[in-house]
Amino acid sequence: MLELDRFACDYHYEHDHDHDSNCRMTAELWDRETFVEQLRAIGMRAYHDKHPFHIAMNEGQLVPGALRGWVANRFYYQGNIPIKDAAILGNCPVREVRQAWIHRILDHDGASSGAIESAVLSGESAAPHAPGTARATANEGGIEAWLRLGEACGLSHDELLNNRHLLPGVRFAVDAYVNFARTQPWPIAIASSLTELFAPDLMTARLAAFEKFYQWIDPRGLDYFRRRLTQARRDSDEALGITLEYCNTPELQREAVRALEFKCDVLWSMLDAIHHAYGSLETAAC
Amino acid sequence: MLELDRFACDYHYEHDHDHDSNCRMTAELWDRETFVEQLRAIGMRAYHDKHPFHIAMNEGQLVPGALRGWVANRFYYQGNIPIKDAAILGNCPVREVRQAWIHRILDHDGASSGAIESAVLSGESAAPHAPGTARATANEGGIEAWLRLGEACGLSHDELLNNRHLLPGVRFAVDAYVNFARTQPWPIAIASSLTELFAPDLMTARLAAFEKFYQWIDPRGLDYFRRRLTQARRDSDEALGITLEYCNTPELQREAVRALEFKCDVLWSMLDAIHHAYGSLETAAC
Repeated sequence: MLELDRFACDYHYEHDHDHDSNCRMTAELWDRETFVEQLRAIGMRAYHDKHPFHIAMNEGQLVPGALRGWVANRFYYQGNIPIKDAAILGNCPVREVRQAWIHRILDHDGASSGAIESAVLSGESAAPHAPGTARATANEGGIEAWLRLGEACGLSHDELLNNRHLLPGVRFAVDAYVNFARTQPWPIAIASSLTELFAPDLMTARLAAFEKFYQWIDPRGLDYFRRRLTQARRDSDEALGITLEYCNTPELQREAVRALEFKCDVLWSMLDAIHHAYGSLETAAC
Repeated sequence: MLELDRFACDYHYEHDHDHDSNCRMTAELWDRETFVEQLRAIGMRAYHDKHPFHIAMNEGQLVPGALRGWVANRFYYQGNIPIKDAAILGNCPVREVRQAWIHRILDHDGASSGAIESAVLSGESAAPHAPGTARATANEGGIEAWLRLGEACGLSHDELLNNRHLLPGVRFAVDAYVNFARTQPWPIAIASSLTELFAPDLMTARLAAFEKFYQWIDPRGLDYFRRRLTQARRDSDEALGITLEYCNTPELQREAVRALEFKCDVLWSMLDAIHHAYGSLETAAC
């Protein structure tokens, strides 16, 4: 309880502080370092690596049914990421930002040969590829990699693609995230993606946990986590750079921090629903 | 007048027909051929190649100021195309359609090295490119090519990028198109892009006209038109395929036809505004 009270106090302190600042119109522009600190503080406090379900997962306490439940439900999140990122692109009038952001959609959806040709040849006449130039074949994206994780856990493509295990709370949280990206100013929507700042550490711990505790999962199913180690670092660097540049008023800076808090709530809320549905399947082992 | 009356009759006939069909709930699913005919009929009647300004342009009747006015205003349309296409992506839950559609954004925005790596390597570890594989350099897109067309006409990047010549009527029409893509069901938004079916013929005529009548324009500025000859054919084939597949109820088919009609109205309305602003600059020569 003490812990909870302290959390509530911190939380309200920050909100009251903002509220006072806004009333007195004296909110100051944070320097770069302070802004980054404020963003990192959200992750320290609210990122879902601290959720009991995640802790149990990384400590090897989940039975196969619970892990499958997580994989199946998280697929709805994975499947909506490119839609969320396209919504951001569709609200962004800055071409340089769109050029920097679009690879996220390709990373998750995978690239068809048409997209590869456009990226590589971009507007040149459609000459046939010489041998040794870009492979004009479809390239696997994160969604496909997650489907393979599902297979490795014993979940069919149909179960994932048709959301057969999707919990209402997970759907609501993910839909809220997509809706946020559609309706918020694009720099704020980009700030909300900054949970990626905290992802590589969690991904490293998760990979180690899966390899140690869940050896019933075919290790080839873990490719998604491996690729995200690199991608999340690159992506969060990009997103942080854009946030620092375009959230350039005291109001936008504070809005960006709240956006990241919102995104932590999305991830946390997904785990709440999953924990409720599958938590009783945890093993008694520590 | 007779011509106008006939046009009005045709128009109302079609609307009344739809209206009656809906009331009687007997609208039938068109077969593929009929659906395509209905779409092509819209182009035959309402595509902007028949607008007096376009006719004057292709007959060599525009003075430099009028042509520059068209180039400057059309830039607003060009600059909004990737936003419109991202809005479609952001509403589309079908990964295969997103994979087919995303190259349009790359075609117009140009591709950064990040997008090229994502398209080609898609999730593989970020190994350096071997010589002879995809060039990891930024590739020019259609917006950049249109900026060069502007230069070739004597318009600075600043004049185009900051919309210094943008007419309200052009802004309203383009914004209506983007808003349509954001708010309509994605197969209907895709159908609205089918003006591309009629673009290659216009582009061929335009290229010939520019080379013959407007030799004061540096021919290197005409690359945009050249690339669109190929791109528009490929794009309209794709969009037609998606429209035929996903506009698969009598209601969606008729909505698709109306979407294409709406898009023709957008293009026509842009030329109305441009014609009003620059029409008096036409030469007297035929």
